[in-house]
Amino acid sequence: MSKFFNSIYKGLEPYTPGEQPQDKKYVKLNTNESPFPPAPGVIAAVNAREAEDLRLYSDPELKPLKAQLSETMGVETSNVFVGNGSDECLNYAFMAFGEDGFAFPDITYSFYKVIANLNQITMDIKALKPDYTVDVNDYLGDKLPDGTYTGIGKSIVIANPNAPTGIAIGLSDIARICEANADHVVIIDEAYVDFAEDGTSAVELIPKYDNLLVTQTFSKSRSMAGARVGFAIGSEAIIQDMETLRNSNNPYNVNRISMKCAVEALKDTDYFNKNCNLIRENRKYTKLALEQMGFRVLDSQTNFLFAESDKVKGADLYSALKDRGVLVRHFNDPKITNFNRITIGSKDEMDILLKTIREII
Amino acid sequence: MSKFFNSIYKGLEPYTPGEQPQDKKYVKLNTNESPFPPAPGVIAAVNAREAEDLRLYSDPELKPLKAQLSETMGVETSNVFVGNGSDECLNYAFMAFGEDGFAFPDITYSFYKVIANLNQITMDIKALKPDYTVDVNDYLGDKLPDGTYTGIGKSIVIANPNAPTGIAIGLSDIARICEANADHVVIIDEAYVDFAEDGTSAVELIPKYDNLLVTQTFSKSRSMAGARVGFAIGSEAIIQDMETLRNSNNPYNVNRISMKCAVEALKDTDYFNKNCNLIRENRKYTKLALEQMGFRVLDSQTNFLFAESDKVKGADLYSALKDRGVLVRHFNDPKITNFNRITIGSKDEMDILLKTIREII
Repeated sequence: MSKFFNSIYKGLEPYTPGEQPQDKKYVKLNTNESPFPPAPGVIAAVNAREAEDLRLYSDPELKPLKAQLSETMGVETSNVFVGNGSDECLNYAFMAFGEDGFAFPDITYSFYKVIANLNQITMDIKALKPDYTVDVNDYLGDKLPDGTYTGIGKSIVIANPNAPTGIAIGLSDIARICEANADHVVIIDEAYVDFAEDGTSAVELIPKYDNLLVTQTFSKSRSMAGARVGFAIGSEAIIQDMETLRNSNNPYNVNRISMKCAVEALKDTDYFNKNCNLIRENRKYTKLALEQMGFRVLDSQTNFLFAESDKVKGADLYSALKDRGVLVRHFNDPKITNFNRITIGSKDEMDILLKTIREII
Repeated sequence: MSKFFNSIYKGLEPYTPGEQPQDKKYVKLNTNESPFPPAPGVIAAVNAREAEDLRLYSDPELKPLKAQLSETMGVETSNVFVGNGSDECLNYAFMAFGEDGFAFPDITYSFYKVIANLNQITMDIKALKPDYTVDVNDYLGDKLPDGTYTGIGKSIVIANPNAPTGIAIGLSDIARICEANADHVVIIDEAYVDFAEDGTSAVELIPKYDNLLVTQTFSKSRSMAGARVGFAIGSEAIIQDMETLRNSNNPYNVNRISMKCAVEALKDTDYFNKNCNLIRENRKYTKLALEQMGFRVLDSQTNFLFAESDKVKGADLYSALKDRGVLVRHFNDPKITNFNRITIGSKDEMDILLKTIREII
């Protein structure tokens, strides 16, 4: 740290991305990337003609991508915000709506704590239930005589499905939370929603709740983690607030080629559905196999499994897998220390994982 | 604005990017883009194989690009920060080093005021001299009996060459400012430095001044505005502070393809030098022609000219040019209202500009 560093940032603990070791070739099941390449239209869009146009700025209004997102998600373009990854969308939402603090579960995407600290936002951290599900009652406040709720007096962010548990809550619960907290913004982070069994997004609730903001990403189900594109859908007024911040910070936040790729990715619904189905199949297959080996595997609606076993400590399994060339993710949190988070890859990758675990235990 | 918007951001006035009208094809001389495509190596790097790899996250440590920047700029990788455009670098620097406020000229890149407001940073705005040059004495503080200076008690950002004037100060002046303000960070924003006649960057002063931060961009001289890559060079400690903020905000801030393109752009020194020379030639040619038409043209060291004429008001010339299909940039600031900023394009584009101005006046 330099002697010049702003004192408000001195205690920051930055986010720790999943490791990207370069020492050898791993079966990489640690950062929830897709095993499939982006859609053929995306591949075709990455070409010399687009490269020549790199001399020109990207569109600061992101018009073609907002238009395509509007069509795909069934909302108006004024309901759409686009970020350099959904992390950027989340950061702008925390800045915009964090004045009274943010509540979120104790076991969830660790980035929320990081951006709350960055923006000097107070945190109200709610424990998950013993079965690792989100306790919806924690986000409603007190019940009033007329049956409504007081709300909790701050904004809320819930990853749904949650990470790293993989467990989802239903839309009726999200509706209850939005209704109880009408004076604050409720963010539903749907990075993994496309892999859910029913695949239902909270976007359909947006016409009903002007305090609901849904974030999604091209990094997982669209196979474009390296392109850095995420988006948020919400009422026109809250999207405008986020645009005010974006245009005060980095108006050209999404580059030309990623923008073009994102448009192409959205157009190919068949490819998208096929890949999401394959992930669901491989998830089911892997979960069953792990359970047959005695693992407890949470009910995942995502492209990863969260699993533990009495036979082997979480950290030991992580290390033993890494030694054998399979990378999974282990979290240094005592509440989940016996678990590992395993990304769902291709069938072949899952077979290597399962075979390697069998060798270890 | 929504009722949920954080009150600290309610008065924000976002940055206004240069217009990108879609109504017809313009000779586009309004956003200081390069008339040349990116280097051949960049074009070749934008291909299907890279597109397939988009399924994987970009390297959060930006290793290959930092290594190449280290080689090209003659510094250690620990002296290099990479941003999603140099605007992102500037914003992180304002966050990191803005505790005591920032001083900068009244006529300069308008983004400084925007990010100062965004981060609740106090501003000390110094007038340019009547000839539109930066008054170095404004940034030194009081002279002490031993001949040294007190400094001004806050951080400083100077665009050098300055925008939209195009005028540069020398390295000896930058050294004086760094020396006088040893307790605060001095940012030299070198977005346009590669077009200067001598092309000397303040990067060579970094070993001497641990409070100096130099920012540059791939948007202008490297013909990659649409790729969104910028960088900052400074002492290891101040770069670490900026990394702490980046990793607390958006650790995957630069996408895979732009990162690859930036590496390739840096490798092709010949192409880079050739293009910078062409811009200098076209600048000289255009400046002379404008002067022959009676324009006053400031001494530009950039890829644009800042020019005014007694024969036509700045706003009128801007509008008349736009009507005739030539876009330049006019600023609504009374101090420079008679000027237009004209990007240096190809020789053909300059001839169209000059012919059109001749028709107008």
